[in-house]
Amino acid sequence: MKFDRIGVVGGGSWGTALALVAARAGRTVKLYARDRDAVASINRSGETPRLPGIKLDPALDATNDLAEVLEADAVLLVTPAQTTRALALQMKPYLGAGIPVVLCAKGLEHGSGALLTDVLADALPEAAAAVLSGPSFASDVAKGLPTAVTIAADDAGLADNLARALASDSFRPYSSTDMIGVQIGGALKNVLAIPCGAIVGRGLGASAQAALTARGFAELSRLAKAMGARTETLTGLSGLGDLVLTSSSPQSRNMAFGIEIGRGRSVAELTAPGTKLVEGVHTAPVAVELGKRRGVELPICEAVAAVLAGGLSVDEALQVLMSRPLKREI
Amino acid sequence: MKFDRIGVVGGGSWGTALALVAARAGRTVKLYARDRDAVASINRSGETPRLPGIKLDPALDATNDLAEVLEADAVLLVTPAQTTRALALQMKPYLGAGIPVVLCAKGLEHGSGALLTDVLADALPEAAAAVLSGPSFASDVAKGLPTAVTIAADDAGLADNLARALASDSFRPYSSTDMIGVQIGGALKNVLAIPCGAIVGRGLGASAQAALTARGFAELSRLAKAMGARTETLTGLSGLGDLVLTSSSPQSRNMAFGIEIGRGRSVAELTAPGTKLVEGVHTAPVAVELGKRRGVELPICEAVAAVLAGGLSVDEALQVLMSRPLKREI
Repeated sequence: MKFDRIGVVGGGSWGTALALVAARAGRTVKLYARDRDAVASINRSGETPRLPGIKLDPALDATNDLAEVLEADAVLLVTPAQTTRALALQMKPYLGAGIPVVLCAKGLEHGSGALLTDVLADALPEAAAAVLSGPSFASDVAKGLPTAVTIAADDAGLADNLARALASDSFRPYSSTDMIGVQIGGALKNVLAIPCGAIVGRGLGASAQAALTARGFAELSRLAKAMGARTETLTGLSGLGDLVLTSSSPQSRNMAFGIEIGRGRSVAELTAPGTKLVEGVHTAPVAVELGKRRGVELPICEAVAAVLAGGLSVDEALQVLMSRPLKREI
Repeated sequence: MKFDRIGVVGGGSWGTALALVAARAGRTVKLYARDRDAVASINRSGETPRLPGIKLDPALDATNDLAEVLEADAVLLVTPAQTTRALALQMKPYLGAGIPVVLCAKGLEHGSGALLTDVLADALPEAAAAVLSGPSFASDVAKGLPTAVTIAADDAGLADNLARALASDSFRPYSSTDMIGVQIGGALKNVLAIPCGAIVGRGLGASAQAALTARGFAELSRLAKAMGARTETLTGLSGLGDLVLTSSSPQSRNMAFGIEIGRGRSVAELTAPGTKLVEGVHTAPVAVELGKRRGVELPICEAVAAVLAGGLSVDEALQVLMSRPLKREI
């Protein structure tokens, strides 16, 4: 398998950054964006409001025509998790059978609680599913700063070939066959970053933040293992690596959201129309539901979901999380 | 076992913070410091230059008399790792048989490569060894910000009782019986924080820093497991939690050292007499030696040791660590 032509669906910051990655790796890239102004700006001046200050590769070709982008050897789907099903159905008439679709969003589907690979299998059964995830801020990647991610597919050869197609000096994809582990890590880290941000917003210190990160990792691992993930995935780039990035850097939207919550701003205000999408807000209640279904305790996700639903104040939630009774660690 | 009288040996920032912890938990505390001015300042004004801006508990009693501090039900040894043997020998004439000595430094002994519990067993065989470690900046702890740590001892009952003796609303010790895991986590995280700092100092971005933290955790886990540590310890507070804290916060001396190295300052300048002790600098070559002895690959520790010994430039080391050949994560 060779992947010379890469189609990228989604003209947000991460989609645009991944399109740049593919162009730098020597691929022919087409980028689909819904926003006509973004398309015009990319094609005309090599700039996009989604990645301010970044000069895009002139080889990068943007379009509003989804069909054109899907004439590709592999497609990266880089739209918010909750739009995966709708986009997949939209792509269906244009996508060749067996063409790999690499899911680059991090989340779980509302209602069904499904992994995005299950959503894809349902909506686009003829596509070959793959997942790209790992510690990677779009701005770091766009600037060409060194970044390492995981690309997973059921077929190890497919994962290897996709990794090779996107690799460059600054962007290192590692291949894996653990699509469940990679997806649960990516989905839950967004939820877990929110209380880490709240600790910062409340001024509770870096020590408390680190303790909660470690407990968050245990929680993420419990759910992922119950679903069949492998330990090496969870301690790798897409699990621990991404959790560390999201939970320690205010550049992360999820942590930034938590910081504002911790400072006393309301959930309603922070999720009002026009604000940036915070995936963890959408994933929290779905993760809680999934935990119940699998019989896995997820106290941190539960506290986050309760705060978001208005059933618990931030202080009550932090109190619950920080002052559990003394017990043995092992 | 009840531990009413706690002796703390070591008047640095961490020793003083832990003395405060014991006082807040309701214990009678004596703090030994070598520095006569620090002792006088603590007893006279409730202040110490090691914790600027912190008002100490009036119940905290400091002294230069080691014998007086060792008339205790349990002793916390809070001096730099490389002084453990000398201090233990100095304590020998005054310490009652079976009295718990809680090792609170993080490191491995130069020359022998020994864990500090082995050093203690050698120098003070009649003491009951325990280890306290976890994500905890002295200043956070001194301010009473919420902190969680691990206390390990071979005897689970001893660990439980020590945890209970030091617990308060803001300081939560979890007990464990895995002294090896707790010690290897604490020792190696100091080494691993140095290249994370160098990435920051070189401006390589948070994504690269997070990827290196995940690889560092894998490295720490490999060595610890080869030595008999348990996985739960490594993913817990004293392993992952402390690694996250040290590798993401410039408050950490080890990371701050790495940042300066990354900015181009020399090792000689940063380790000159009068500079603050950076445990990772001392631990790096010992960890490499230990890895060789156990047949465990420690590429990050090796790169750090080579930079410290002048055998590799910072850029060469980061190049080695960031651009390994494409391979499967699992």
